[in-house]
Formats: sequence, C-alpha cells, structure tokens
Amino acid sequence: MTAHPVPAGVLAPVATPFDADLAPDADRLAAHGRWLAGHRCGLVVFGTTGEANSLGVDEKISLLDALVERGLDPPSMIAGTGTCALSDTVRLTRHAVAVGCAGVLMLPPFYYKEVSDEGLFRAYAEVIERVGAAGLALYLYHIPPVAQVPIRLNLIERLLGAFPDTVVGIKDSSGDDANTQAILDAFPGFRVFVGSESGLLACLRGGGAGCIAATVNISPAPIRQLFDAWQTPEAAALQASVTDFRQALRRFPLIPALKEILARHTGDPAWKRLRPPLVGLSEPERNALFAELDARAFSMPGLD
Amino acid sequence: MTAHPVPAGVLAPVATPFDADLAPDADRLAAHGRWLAGHRCGLVVFGTTGEANSLGVDEKISLLDALVERGLDPPSMIAGTGTCALSDTVRLTRHAVAVGCAGVLMLPPFYYKEVSDEGLFRAYAEVIERVGAAGLALYLYHIPPVAQVPIRLNLIERLLGAFPDTVVGIKDSSGDDANTQAILDAFPGFRVFVGSESGLLACLRGGGAGCIAATVNISPAPIRQLFDAWQTPEAAALQASVTDFRQALRRFPLIPALKEILARHTGDPAWKRLRPPLVGLSEPERNALFAELDARAFSMPGLD
Repeated sequence: MTAHPVPAGVLAPVATPFDADLAPDADRLAAHGRWLAGHRCGLVVFGTTGEANSLGVDEKISLLDALVERGLDPPSMIAGTGTCALSDTVRLTRHAVAVGCAGVLMLPPFYYKEVSDEGLFRAYAEVIERVGAAGLALYLYHIPPVAQVPIRLNLIERLLGAFPDTVVGIKDSSGDDANTQAILDAFPGFRVFVGSESGLLACLRGGGAGCIAATVNISPAPIRQLFDAWQTPEAAALQASVTDFRQALRRFPLIPALKEILARHTGDPAWKRLRPPLVGLSEPERNALFAELDARAFSMPGLD
Repeated sequence: MTAHPVPAGVLAPVATPFDADLAPDADRLAAHGRWLAGHRCGLVVFGTTGEANSLGVDEKISLLDALVERGLDPPSMIAGTGTCALSDTVRLTRHAVAVGCAGVLMLPPFYYKEVSDEGLFRAYAEVIERVGAAGLALYLYHIPPVAQVPIRLNLIERLLGAFPDTVVGIKDSSGDDANTQAILDAFPGFRVFVGSESGLLACLRGGGAGCIAATVNISPAPIRQLFDAWQTPEAAALQASVTDFRQALRRFPLIPALKEILARHTGDPAWKRLRPPLVGLSEPERNALFAELDARAFSMPGLD
C-alpha cells in the first residue's frame, strides 16, 4: 500500500457552529479544533455530527479553506466528502486531497435505497478514478441507521481488490461489535475506526485503529486516555467509565445535546444553533442534561 | 390563495439521459420533453426517476437553463428542488422560480432520520422565507420508501397555516391510497398528485389533481386518456388497463427498465446510461422486459 498519513487514534467528528444567518462559522470551528488538537485528538470535518449533509458542497469547500487559513493542520484532519451526487463527491474529494487532508471519509450515495453492491462499487470506483490522485486515502463510511445504505463485507473486499492503495479504512458506525470484528478479521491492515467510544477497547484489541466518535467533541481527554492505556491493566475501567458517560447521553438527541454542552462550557450561546431539520433541546431536556453533567462534575478543561 | 399556474394533470418525472462522461444530456432530455408535451403531459424535472439526487446543484441549474434554451416551456414544468442542504435547496428553488417554472417539488432534507415535525417545518419555512418570492408554488414531496423522512398530515396543516399562498400541493408517493385520501379530505383545494398512475382514478374521484408517475415517461397516452375520461363510464376499464401495465413493470428495477425502453424505442443506446449507484438491467432482465412488452404490442407513437 501507498504510505498515507496515519490519522490519530481518537478523532472528533467536529460539530459545526453556525452564525446568526445559519452560515458555517469558521472562527468558532477553528477554535474548537485547536482545543481538540490540544487534547491530541484528530478532526473529522463534515461528518454526521457536523451536520455536513445540511451543508452544500460550496459551503464545505469554503469552510475547509477557511479552517486551513486559520491554522488547522490538514494532515491531522479527515474530511467527509460523500454526497448523493457523483459530481459533488468528486469535487469535494479533490479539494480535500488538494489541501492535504490525511484522508476522506466517504458515505455511499444515500438517496436511493436497496441499491446493489455492484452499484455502490461503481459509485466509489467512479469517484476514485475521477479524482485520480495518488494522495487519496479513502475511508468508507458505514452508518446504516442514518444513511440506510450499508457497506457490506463483500463490497469492502471488492474495493480493496480494485483500489488497494486508495481504500485504506472504514468508519463503522453500525453500533454492531460483531460487524466491526468481522471487518477486522477479514481485512488485516485495514484501518478500522468505530463510530462510538463505547466500542473503542474492543476495536483496539481486535486490531483496529481507534474511534471517530461524537462525544470526543466534549470529552476528548478520557477517550484519549483510554486509547493511550488500552494495553494496560487500567483499560477495562477506563472503558467502563467512558461507556457509562456515553450511555448517560443516550437519553438526549445527541447533536443538539453536544451543542448545548459546547455553548455552556464556552459561554457562547451561538454554539446552540442547528440547521434544520435538527432542532435544539427543549428546556426540560436541557435541564435534565445539565443535571446529569453536574452530578458527574463534568468539565471541559481549557474551556470552563 | 395566490393564482399560481396549474400544472397538467398528468406529469412525467422525466428520466435524465447522460452522455458518455455521465454528464446530463440536455439535447436528448429536451427531445424527450417535447415528445411528452406532444402527448399533453407536463414535466417534472429532477424527480426521483430523473436521478436528480445523483446530480449536483450546479448541474441541475445548468440543465434547467439548457432545457429552457431548447424551447421547453417553464409554465408546463415543475422542478424538483429539495436537497439535504438548506443552501442548495434555496439556490435551486430561486432558480426554478426565476425561469418561470409552474412550481417546485420539494423533498424534505433526507439525510437525518427520525427528525421532528418541528424540524421539518423549520426546514421548509427557512427555504420559503429565504426564497421570498410571491411566484413560488411549492409542492411537498412525500416519498417515504426512498427518502425515509415522511411528510405527515400535521406538518402539512402547519405549513398550510403559515404559508397558504406558497404551499399549494403535494406529490404522495407513499403508495398508500388511504394516506392520499386522508390528505384530500383534510385539505380541500390542496393540489394532490399521486406518485403512481395506479392510483390516478381514485385520486381524481377524491378531488385530487392528477399523477406524477414514472411510467408516463414511456406510456403517456393511455395515462392521459384515463385522465381525460375519468368522469366517463370507460374510466374503470382504462384504469384497469393502466394498472395492469404498471404491475407488469414491477418485476424490474423501474428506472433502469424505463431507460432500456427509451433506448429501444428511440433507437438510441445512450439512453441506457445511469449514474451510480443505479445500474442497468442484466441481460436476462432485459430479455424478460422486452418479451413482456412484445406480448402487449407495446409502442411509443412518434418514436418507434
């Protein structure tokens, strides 16, 4: 395989702040990215948590440029570039390669449902061939609860056979540990990230690369600590603690909850803004969330 | 309500031909649109059948311009403009209004699943307010089997209450006659199109406006004949015949089958091209399809 940059083992699919007109806010996002980098976490810009599919391709290209201008380090970043449209996916992927991102995380085209693996293979193959860049490190994005278009093992096998220097890994957001393990077993050397820190230790023990998990946005230190200590006797306890926190958040719609927490701990209410169709927490939800955090003495060191 | 143009009762969500590079082919599409107009059918450009979500917003804007330049009549056209991204939906909707389309057919943002009606209301409201055009006639697009994000009666009611001069109708592609009837009963005067000609007579008898149906691409005359004759004694037999043909097509993936048929009857193999993730029929499927058509003495008058 071509030697592509290896992203950090713990990455945040960064939440995207919006200005009063609901345009992406590069300054706030860059500040958030620096805070995460300070905790030795990488960034995935334009993931599901980042409301990426609520942004147009022009907005994503401009925002990526703005983040690089503000000093974020492309080799520590993966960019989500998969859209429904071949043309948009090609354009955004080319741009991510051009600015030097460590890789791209690519959803399958997700409008049409029950499509064939042959169709998904061609979708990825067209993008790879059109981008035509040796620097392209592609991570498949398997998130069936949202995209509703799964990436099955047969498809991975076929893509690895055809593009071994380009298709380097996957984010498995199925929430199904058995699926993650099946991928790890089938494709040694493939960089497998789980989509939740709840599965991080199992993923690492199985030979995986790490996690790309929404909670990293607010709680990077404990997750990074688990990653660093996964081969030590403390690993199981660290995993239990991290999992317990993630379970507590399950009572709330996750993206709005993360933005409430960012708003609270940065002292900046602008963080609460979401693009429709997502909406903010209700007041009872917010009160319950903050009570939960207070009971855990939750903090965001460096922001509080 | 503002007097918006009333589109034809039978509309084709036009299939989109592609050139060898998989770019949209305006010449072939315009010729197809003229053939359909000759059968007194309106056009919906950028629907599900048209692989619209496999096109980027720039491609759609350019293609709409190219169709108007080639003499297609905007007041006989509805443009699909709903995407996942607020910014793209606003841009495309503005453009459809600017060129004088009879209306726009708008999917809800469809990436995030299990979103609230409040979120979907805000999504539509943001677009309507940002477009800010008196000429905007908006048809909601309810296609739960594909979009996986339904438009429920409560949402319609709220949108009609807030934007009575703009939200003028719906395409109901649920395939659920009871849902269509419930909409018709709840909102008199709302222009309801069914998504399949199989439900056309029931829709018209219930006070609906017509159908926007994939099969119109290849079989406009019988469907238009049913529309014209729906209040005559022949209506039930015409509906049965149209439904029987539609049932016969159910054995095949619909969009690839339509393109095969267009290729066969125009004598132009370019019509077979699809953008991934859709793929063409296998040879056995194609043979079975053509045998079915031959047994029915299927023809496309004016093309054959």
